[in-house]
Amino acid sequence: MSTQRFLTRPITRVSGEKSEVRPDHLALEEPLEIQIAYGPQATREWKTIAITMRTPGHDRELAAGFLVGEGILRSLDQVEAVHSRGPRFGEEGWQHSVRVTLRPGVKIDLDRLQRNFYTTSSCGVCGKTSMEALELTSFSPLPPTSWQIDPQTIGALPSHLREAQAVFDQTGGLHAAGLFSCEGKALVIREDVGRHNAVDKVVGAQFLAGRETGSILVVSGRASFELMQKAIASGIPMLVAVGAPSSLAVEVAEKFGATLIGFTKPNGFNIYAGAERVRLDAKNQITPTIDVSKIREVMK
Amino acid sequence: MSTQRFLTRPITRVSGEKSEVRPDHLALEEPLEIQIAYGPQATREWKTIAITMRTPGHDRELAAGFLVGEGILRSLDQVEAVHSRGPRFGEEGWQHSVRVTLRPGVKIDLDRLQRNFYTTSSCGVCGKTSMEALELTSFSPLPPTSWQIDPQTIGALPSHLREAQAVFDQTGGLHAAGLFSCEGKALVIREDVGRHNAVDKVVGAQFLAGRETGSILVVSGRASFELMQKAIASGIPMLVAVGAPSSLAVEVAEKFGATLIGFTKPNGFNIYAGAERVRLDAKNQITPTIDVSKIREVMK
Repeated sequence: MSTQRFLTRPITRVSGEKSEVRPDHLALEEPLEIQIAYGPQATREWKTIAITMRTPGHDRELAAGFLVGEGILRSLDQVEAVHSRGPRFGEEGWQHSVRVTLRPGVKIDLDRLQRNFYTTSSCGVCGKTSMEALELTSFSPLPPTSWQIDPQTIGALPSHLREAQAVFDQTGGLHAAGLFSCEGKALVIREDVGRHNAVDKVVGAQFLAGRETGSILVVSGRASFELMQKAIASGIPMLVAVGAPSSLAVEVAEKFGATLIGFTKPNGFNIYAGAERVRLDAKNQITPTIDVSKIREVMK
Repeated sequence: MSTQRFLTRPITRVSGEKSEVRPDHLALEEPLEIQIAYGPQATREWKTIAITMRTPGHDRELAAGFLVGEGILRSLDQVEAVHSRGPRFGEEGWQHSVRVTLRPGVKIDLDRLQRNFYTTSSCGVCGKTSMEALELTSFSPLPPTSWQIDPQTIGALPSHLREAQAVFDQTGGLHAAGLFSCEGKALVIREDVGRHNAVDKVVGAQFLAGRETGSILVVSGRASFELMQKAIASGIPMLVAVGAPSSLAVEVAEKFGATLIGFTKPNGFNIYAGAERVRLDAKNQITPTIDVSKIREVMK
């Protein structure tokens, strides 16, 4: 599989008073249609579930990971085949459609699928709070985990992503996501113009290979509701972001028993939820200068 | 209108071997439903067009700007009212639904709306290239503009966004978008957890105030296809990004006659399309060391 995920074009580089036309690399962005096929073979039907703007490559993994993140796929036993389809583009022969065919007998509730899609790519419906809408989905809280990870290992996770990017990303335009074991070992790393696609690709890679999803999801950017929800749906108990989390990502992490870490640097980070999965030395815990139980949330 | 767009919560800050529980600010993220109401008053119907995860505030502007960016709204004359609806949340009394009511007699083609939504939040449909899918929409190429902007003014645009963020963003989790005149004067700046929402808010602010959209859209992050398309649909001829553009953003800019600039710093930037709107001094143009006409695009 090639790693060519950029396009070369002439651009005008302006630097102070000088300008120069020269070649530059751009991160590829193209649409991918994700279809699901279901029902008995003789009367099989298919439906387009989503169209996403992604960087071509690892498309079957993206489609499978997307369906895991939506709670539609739960086990590889449900899947008969995953095929790329449609006309081919570019030197790499990219195709812009992937069809996931379910085994005969595997049932999906199309109404639920519709509702699920609504509540996940979006979450709230008029008149409900976002948390109420989330309860419509069938995601279970994550079970407690037996392991703890030490702060040095957490601080080192983003550098693993950056090392992988140094090889692949010649454009500065790609986000990275990686799955790691609870010892901090990299299991799979993928890149994409869309953060959510990079997450779908790593989840789908493990799913299609029949491997455990992994303990820790690391993302190069911020932690939104959408990424936290994908982690929970995929059974990943810890999300480590290089950037800031949103309020809803933190609320969802807390509600579903996940660990959410942000602003991750080699020598420090913030734990927003699920601190019990981080090995903190009690004797190095600074006594709060204010009574934190008095910090009220602004919005409920 | 309050500028409170964060939530305060206790977090665990880990720094080297020390840890401390302390309060922190998180960027608010909550769902917003965008509805459109249409038809004669007696038989008026409404439809949910989108649900987006946004930072509450300027919701009516977000809804209007979204509909402008989708090519559904083109003139303020089409609009009878824009109301926030639904239960109120938080100290600010946020509501999570906005209904845009069209004037009686204003027609929208729901099929086209459906198709449009498909092609813009997504763009490609199986078997078509993204560019073919784009041609399904009704966006017109941008007319040539009479003005040129000098490089120093372009280089200074991101600092205007950052100055506004220094005031509002205490979370590190918000993206900013701003509309500027062709002299580089800030017209309106907005923030959101989602880049596309920040763009919708600035476009909607100008639209609802009955003002010209502005000449230059500045965004704090990367330039994706989606943002470039919103600029074109809103009639904004120049998009200036602090980060990298994607391949499709550049292709779309070129096709529709827009200017796209990325990696913008005070003393330099890259022009990916539409260089004629930047005042470059011919005597300071460095002769290319290679024949740029020989740079072939990798993917067509």
